[in-house]
Amino acid sequence: MPGPGTEAVRFLADVVVPCDGTGRVLRPGVVAVSGDTITQVGGPDGWGDEPPGDHRAREVRVRGALLPGMVNVHCHSPMTLFRGSGENLPLHRWLTEVLWPQEAHLTAEDVYWGMTLAVGELLCFGVTTTCEAYFHEDALADAVVAAGSRAVVTPGVLQLPGHEGGEGWWAARIDEILDFHARRDGEAGRIEVGFAPHAPYTVPLGVLADVAGACRRLGALFHIHLAETEEECIRFAAEHGRSAPVALAGAGVFDGRVLAAHSVWLSEEDLAVYRDHDVAVAHCPQSNAKLASGIAPLARLLAQGTRVGLGTDGPASNNDLDLWEEVRLAAMLARIREGDAAALPADAAFDLATRGAGRALGRPDLGTLAAGAKADMMAVDIDSPAFVPLLEDAQMIEHLVWSGSSRLVTDVWVGGDQVVEGGRCLTVDVERACAEVGTRARRLSLAAG
Amino acid sequence: MPGPGTEAVRFLADVVVPCDGTGRVLRPGVVAVSGDTITQVGGPDGWGDEPPGDHRAREVRVRGALLPGMVNVHCHSPMTLFRGSGENLPLHRWLTEVLWPQEAHLTAEDVYWGMTLAVGELLCFGVTTTCEAYFHEDALADAVVAAGSRAVVTPGVLQLPGHEGGEGWWAARIDEILDFHARRDGEAGRIEVGFAPHAPYTVPLGVLADVAGACRRLGALFHIHLAETEEECIRFAAEHGRSAPVALAGAGVFDGRVLAAHSVWLSEEDLAVYRDHDVAVAHCPQSNAKLASGIAPLARLLAQGTRVGLGTDGPASNNDLDLWEEVRLAAMLARIREGDAAALPADAAFDLATRGAGRALGRPDLGTLAAGAKADMMAVDIDSPAFVPLLEDAQMIEHLVWSGSSRLVTDVWVGGDQVVEGGRCLTVDVERACAEVGTRARRLSLAAG
Repeated sequence: MPGPGTEAVRFLADVVVPCDGTGRVLRPGVVAVSGDTITQVGGPDGWGDEPPGDHRAREVRVRGALLPGMVNVHCHSPMTLFRGSGENLPLHRWLTEVLWPQEAHLTAEDVYWGMTLAVGELLCFGVTTTCEAYFHEDALADAVVAAGSRAVVTPGVLQLPGHEGGEGWWAARIDEILDFHARRDGEAGRIEVGFAPHAPYTVPLGVLADVAGACRRLGALFHIHLAETEEECIRFAAEHGRSAPVALAGAGVFDGRVLAAHSVWLSEEDLAVYRDHDVAVAHCPQSNAKLASGIAPLARLLAQGTRVGLGTDGPASNNDLDLWEEVRLAAMLARIREGDAAALPADAAFDLATRGAGRALGRPDLGTLAAGAKADMMAVDIDSPAFVPLLEDAQMIEHLVWSGSSRLVTDVWVGGDQVVEGGRCLTVDVERACAEVGTRARRLSLAAG
Repeated sequence: MPGPGTEAVRFLADVVVPCDGTGRVLRPGVVAVSGDTITQVGGPDGWGDEPPGDHRAREVRVRGALLPGMVNVHCHSPMTLFRGSGENLPLHRWLTEVLWPQEAHLTAEDVYWGMTLAVGELLCFGVTTTCEAYFHEDALADAVVAAGSRAVVTPGVLQLPGHEGGEGWWAARIDEILDFHARRDGEAGRIEVGFAPHAPYTVPLGVLADVAGACRRLGALFHIHLAETEEECIRFAAEHGRSAPVALAGAGVFDGRVLAAHSVWLSEEDLAVYRDHDVAVAHCPQSNAKLASGIAPLARLLAQGTRVGLGTDGPASNNDLDLWEEVRLAAMLARIREGDAAALPADAAFDLATRGAGRALGRPDLGTLAAGAKADMMAVDIDSPAFVPLLEDAQMIEHLVWSGSSRLVTDVWVGGDQVVEGGRCLTVDVERACAEVGTRARRLSLAAG
């Protein structure tokens, strides 16, 4: 995959939905791109004889609506290898009895193919960036680059039970990730590197502080599972005399760029910690529902200004990678939790998968069509019954959220390069990836007994 | 649409998932059909030289998995005309401020086109039967028959506020539906006629008893909205000194074939009434979530043996007609409500859209592939990443529920006749239906001010 060039391209679409926080819908609209970056977004108002952008630019006509690609802020995508394993188990039994025994046998090549299949799925769903917490990080990044996609790769810091590495393991693992960061952060203009210490109940507080320090020095993302189940919160508080968020804040862990996945069980004090330390949240409604973890206080988090994006979580606990479903579910669960049919309007819900998700990652250049943002885009078929009737353009976002779906994504671009055309991924051999994952999953299942 | 013939056809599929309560998966499998009815279902075990069924039968090869068509047990499909209207409003404000003022202006032709578009959507999603509560019932049935689909048509008994019909209205409306029943029940082997008095808070108890009496005499379905919102339950109890289910049971309303839609707010006493009177439930998780009505006690209902099927509710409050989403959401919400990741296993969830839904309608001949059942079927593409890995056939249903989706439905048959091929509806001009609904929706919106 070559790095971004400087070719100028103008995307001319029937409709542009910029998801730039203004709520505007441009009909028709144009997105001007130079290399991998958007230089200008315009609608009919600003056009004279010529749509905006370089007049020598190559033109790409887009049928339907052009939107930013979605941003998945919390995933373990190579777990396509474990899709559907351990159904009907609560989180901790599923981790210890089903998942970790198999993960202990994973090879880098397994992760490459698990990630390759996942990226093929994500791109077809219009998801152009995924924030990944996993291991065998080189293989994971290789798969992302090969598929021409974009990822924030946050290598996992976790010792699988029964496979602990001894005294110096934590420091060695941090060094390994520092080396990975030095080698691959910024690669192909598509890879960003952060750190993903698993959770406060699996990683010692001192290690978390060390990792946070490394993140601060590098400006890297600190990505952690936090307050996912009630049980883990009760146990942590019993052992440590305070909640995990309070303990982490006290240890200085929250002083950098922090993304806390799940965050279902937050006390008033925890919410204040999130607010005061600008801790961003990866909200994973489907994973939390499927595993019966609960409903996170999304409306509260948004009301206090916390940055929130949506995550699918890994395909072993979701089981697809369809961020459109998370958008709709987030809106439904917020309404149920609040008992209020207006708790999360459609535009606020869609923002969680686009601009809000970019902001949650600390990446305002993702999830929006605006000058300076990455040219990550999807075209959506709006001739579908899902958009009928359309009495005013303001309904566009409501239809996207409530009757739209990933099925309507026709074309996708990452950094201006087309990766999906007519619903087919151009950059991943999905059939081969299915076969590889199928074979490897069988081997892993047998190896774990 | 001609009535069912007697042609013998054998459907030979890579996989047959009969959804017949046994949990079995046949690989390969055959479904033998005569006219509109299944005569035999078999797998490789029972085959000698020849798959089961009439050896002179025409053969249809099905790529992928053959399943029963889904059954939507509660819908107001012509409300495609109002899709996306009244977003972010709670049920009662939405009904009185947005919906009813527009419905007062509906013509029969509007309903025909609203239903036509809906049937086009339903069939593409693999939904072959829908239980409809609406008015302009002749137009509704016309659209179903023209599209070669199947419906239980339960004409609404409701006076829109501001459009009350005076003293004799209720009796006249019952006579109208009796006449409709006499004319169209059984039409084309596809239409069944029941009654849908709206709700205990909009229809007097005496009228409900009269309707129930008519239903009992005809063996027809009595279909009613019940216990949807907490507010309506509190108000009913305050006015009547007991809950609506208790009042209805006391008035003999529950002595026939009863389907109670929603049933979110049920006391222990109400649950006992449902159990003792074999009241079936149309569970509408997405509508209940979107309108913040709540989460129905699904696990409790199933545990006490209540027959439950899934309903999308109308596209004004859902907003699509995708029953696959209801299956997954039902499982997720049951897990959240019970705090138990095993609360509704995948097979029990899928049953709610297939065999269980047929039973909830009092139609054991729907939603299952079994001798004597209607030959309503869908073919699902199982080469998708959604089914990778597949370590054992028992995972098939889990993948259908957790990573499957309506996007994977390729072909659909109703009563043995093909209505969807390669994802395209053969019997509905969807483009024209979109245009008609768009134009009519604009007129209705303007008429209601």
